[in-house]
Amino acid sequence: MTNVAGCELCDLSVPAVWAGPKFSVIIVEDANYPGFCRVIWRDHVREMSDLSREDRLLVNEAVHQLELAVREVMQPLKVNVASLGNVVPHLHWHVIPRYADDAHFPAPVWAQASRQADEATLAARRALLPQLADAIVRRFNQFQQEEQACPTQPT
Amino acid sequence: MTNVAGCELCDLSVPAVWAGPKFSVIIVEDANYPGFCRVIWRDHVREMSDLSREDRLLVNEAVHQLELAVREVMQPLKVNVASLGNVVPHLHWHVIPRYADDAHFPAPVWAQASRQADEATLAARRALLPQLADAIVRRFNQFQQEEQACPTQPT
Repeated sequence: MTNVAGCELCDLSVPAVWAGPKFSVIIVEDANYPGFCRVIWRDHVREMSDLSREDRLLVNEAVHQLELAVREVMQPLKVNVASLGNVVPHLHWHVIPRYADDAHFPAPVWAQASRQADEATLAARRALLPQLADAIVRRFNQFQQEEQACPTQPT
Repeated sequence: MTNVAGCELCDLSVPAVWAGPKFSVIIVEDANYPGFCRVIWRDHVREMSDLSREDRLLVNEAVHQLELAVREVMQPLKVNVASLGNVVPHLHWHVIPRYADDAHFPAPVWAQASRQADEATLAARRALLPQLADAIVRRFNQFQQEEQACPTQPT
């Protein structure tokens, strides 16, 4: 396992909702974006294209499973998916539920905010987080079982 | 084929560098980001998780091939990959070469700019664009041949 001193994703301080041998899934604590999640690769790898084909397919599938969980529970207007890593160049994917009334819509969450999201609306979305955690655990346990039975096939 | 009136990605006005039956690849004209590219799915589909498994694997592979082409020619410090689609909810992926001296680094390109990138540096990167177009065509022709011979396998 590759570990880089001082990398905050090698030394993950946030508790994972689900952790497997190769990646973890977390729900980000972002006051404006309840349901914002990440897939974090365990090893210190910089780019998707630095992974083996097998591992890359695994990450793609993990991001897909997370998108499904976020859609199922958070019912967003749109899902945003991104792997940036400019600040922390340790492979991770953002999966962000977006709504017409959120702080930045339709701009990306990294742009300047265009409004303050309504507090009651945010509270209602935050109330879904235990259900989101359950959906993630359920989907990723199932995913892991399927991977063990029949790994994602490189062609 | 699904086509939605008024969708700028259904009615793509930018010439594609490479166009296949299911998606196109374009080089974005962005003065600050030479080498910024997109994979644009042909049908009007909103989310990755609205695709069939076969098509989703195809998109993932296309984004990977584009990342390889961008790394090969543009030699970025980091690659940013994102599917947002809040403004135009027609599936497309951004692949963006990032450098320590670009206008926003380490922030995402959608954040507020932190500097004006050096014009000579940008010009040198722009001079690589014909080579990037060649690399895209070469890689995607090869990818298409391999797909035809042996499609990406759903498990």
